[in-house]
Amino acid sequence: MTTLDQLKAAKAACPALLRATTEQKNQALSAMADALLHHEADILLANQKDVAAARGTVSEVMIDRLRLDPSRIDGMVEGIRQVAALPDPVGRVLETVERPNGLRIEKTAVPMGVVAIVYESRPNVTSDAAALALKSGNVCVLRGGKEAFATANAITNALREGLAAAGLPQDCVSMIQDTSRDSVNVLMKAVGLVDLLIPRGGPGLIHACVQNALVPCIQTGTGICHLYVDESADQDMALNIIENAKASRPSVCNAAEVLLVHRKIAAEFLPKLRFRLERDRVRRGLQPVELRCDRRAAAVLDGMVAGPRDFDTEFLDYILAVAVVDSVDAAIDHIAAHSTGHSEAIITESEENARLFTSLVDSAAVYVNASTRFTDGGEFGLGCEMGISTQKLHARGPMGLRELTSYKYIIRGNGQIR
Amino acid sequence: MTTLDQLKAAKAACPALLRATTEQKNQALSAMADALLHHEADILLANQKDVAAARGTVSEVMIDRLRLDPSRIDGMVEGIRQVAALPDPVGRVLETVERPNGLRIEKTAVPMGVVAIVYESRPNVTSDAAALALKSGNVCVLRGGKEAFATANAITNALREGLAAAGLPQDCVSMIQDTSRDSVNVLMKAVGLVDLLIPRGGPGLIHACVQNALVPCIQTGTGICHLYVDESADQDMALNIIENAKASRPSVCNAAEVLLVHRKIAAEFLPKLRFRLERDRVRRGLQPVELRCDRRAAAVLDGMVAGPRDFDTEFLDYILAVAVVDSVDAAIDHIAAHSTGHSEAIITESEENARLFTSLVDSAAVYVNASTRFTDGGEFGLGCEMGISTQKLHARGPMGLRELTSYKYIIRGNGQIR
Repeated sequence: MTTLDQLKAAKAACPALLRATTEQKNQALSAMADALLHHEADILLANQKDVAAARGTVSEVMIDRLRLDPSRIDGMVEGIRQVAALPDPVGRVLETVERPNGLRIEKTAVPMGVVAIVYESRPNVTSDAAALALKSGNVCVLRGGKEAFATANAITNALREGLAAAGLPQDCVSMIQDTSRDSVNVLMKAVGLVDLLIPRGGPGLIHACVQNALVPCIQTGTGICHLYVDESADQDMALNIIENAKASRPSVCNAAEVLLVHRKIAAEFLPKLRFRLERDRVRRGLQPVELRCDRRAAAVLDGMVAGPRDFDTEFLDYILAVAVVDSVDAAIDHIAAHSTGHSEAIITESEENARLFTSLVDSAAVYVNASTRFTDGGEFGLGCEMGISTQKLHARGPMGLRELTSYKYIIRGNGQIR
Repeated sequence: MTTLDQLKAAKAACPALLRATTEQKNQALSAMADALLHHEADILLANQKDVAAARGTVSEVMIDRLRLDPSRIDGMVEGIRQVAALPDPVGRVLETVERPNGLRIEKTAVPMGVVAIVYESRPNVTSDAAALALKSGNVCVLRGGKEAFATANAITNALREGLAAAGLPQDCVSMIQDTSRDSVNVLMKAVGLVDLLIPRGGPGLIHACVQNALVPCIQTGTGICHLYVDESADQDMALNIIENAKASRPSVCNAAEVLLVHRKIAAEFLPKLRFRLERDRVRRGLQPVELRCDRRAAAVLDGMVAGPRDFDTEFLDYILAVAVVDSVDAAIDHIAAHSTGHSEAIITESEENARLFTSLVDSAAVYVNASTRFTDGGEFGLGCEMGISTQKLHARGPMGLRELTSYKYIIRGNGQIR
């Protein structure tokens, strides 16, 4: 089938899914989980082929992301069962208005319709995204990376078998068969067939979608996250938060990339920081963090001097850009100029500066005295996550089930005219 | 100033507006209302110039929309005062989560930032949009039609005088000085300067924005609204609703354009309908409604036979397309194929068919036994309206103050790391 034919089949599956009860959707999720386990051997075999084909063409980190084993499949199965256990976001009456003329208006949560997810090579995204979409009443069209195609296809086939066993259309979940760029273009332009496009991947993919999509699109992921250490900060707390935010998992979007330090504490704090992130980490057997300093920080540290792009780069690596600023306002201004709107943190003991920072920094998540690494659906108590929105329209920050719904107004009358 | 310079000035006004309290915003609205009254003579003079220049180049209906008089200015002043009286949508804590690790997460309503409104020649949109934007903490950039430019500029200058009197930056409200298409293009591409673009106007403008905007954009307005008269309908109620939905104000987006009638009642109902919309309206001194019938309706009525586009046209006129359908499911399918997602109504005495219709019709407002004409911010109890969204992302249906906000997560800790 062409991509367009696949999208038409997906759209055609929407009414049946709209009619499904919460119980039917949960039964389908359970059957999908069972089918994944049942087809574990097929999936692992497909994955071995993908890994063998990818070896030598992509990095070892990518190979590790791509590789499945029985415990990772168990994780996927467990993920589906967890989604089944979450409350159904569809059909909730968000507001009720009774008008003087007798009209009763109910603002009611409804699915988006067809949600298309473009992602790279992590196989678990296939089952996570399918489960979240199904629970929120959305038909899901998956367009995965070509390195993981055999694996994702085997997973999708198992999920579709589960759907059929539960009496729902198999086309509630489908995998786009064309792995060329053409299919992404078709998804971006499919007005009337794709109700929401979610690109999950590198900045190139996300930029291409935002620039070219004619269908509604939610921008996810890119995180140039900032930490600001205020003059009044508890400096030990600051060191803990900085090391955690930068180095606990540098490859993720909620890792910090830029540190701003108040000028009044720079001479005292920056040497402690360098010790903690360099020598002390080596002593603990950990990879040290390279500091790229602006002129003022370099004057204190003799650190490597930052290049022209270092304050606008998502390093996703053991690298931290460091600048000295004159005030909390200067920190806020720097963030306004360089942030991607994901997560930023202030470390301060000043209530007033915390208030300024949280009210003026225009990002999805703004922290006081905590690590940016908490920006995550699970950590926020949403139970699951389809990605992290860095835009302001519709959903911002971690997107769980509710963020995959829209609403409509249902109005009941007895002949009212205006 | 160039359009881009105007946008930069608008963005620069955001922090001051973010810092303003509800009381300061209300004082500014009050001062804006006073300034409009104070400058009534200037505004009327500017309007006379616009009307004189437009005469002969646009229709009399357009001239009437463009023309201001003291009572219309009073209406604008009253509109601003009403917005001041509404609750502040910003700063509301939408949800609070306390996590086991002690993090306290507050999901908090925040302004979008810079909201750009592209509209046509109705002068009152200038003050309505400015008031709604200001109350919701948004800086507002207005790009009106060139026929009303002098009027809109005079209104904007008065509003800016009011802002200054209340101690807020004048650039919280500005009117784009370039009335060529270039300025709309600049608005559509101003990533980082325009946080939300709202086109209010004809389908051409809206289509151009949706196709070309790189900034977040909310699609408003176009309404091909459907009425479905079920087999079980109270036929007198149906006649009242149809006449009201079609003919009470045909030029607005919530007016009905298409009528679907169940085949079992077509032979009885359609002649009554024709009588009501044609001869009876003439008898009452009203303009009759022209019926454009599909093959099956024409077989009953000998009405004018519909052309190929009549079921996909927003007539905005005394014209109604009429088709006969076999069932409520067929009506739902017809609507799925032809609706713009604005408002649709079923007239029925069957609970089951009402349930099917409201759950399967994918539009912003779905009515049971009431006229589509109620889709309106005031009628829904929102107090005001920036337009009616026909999309599913972010806001759907009438957009009031809350729909002009986004949210962010503010997270307070005491050193938590992950």
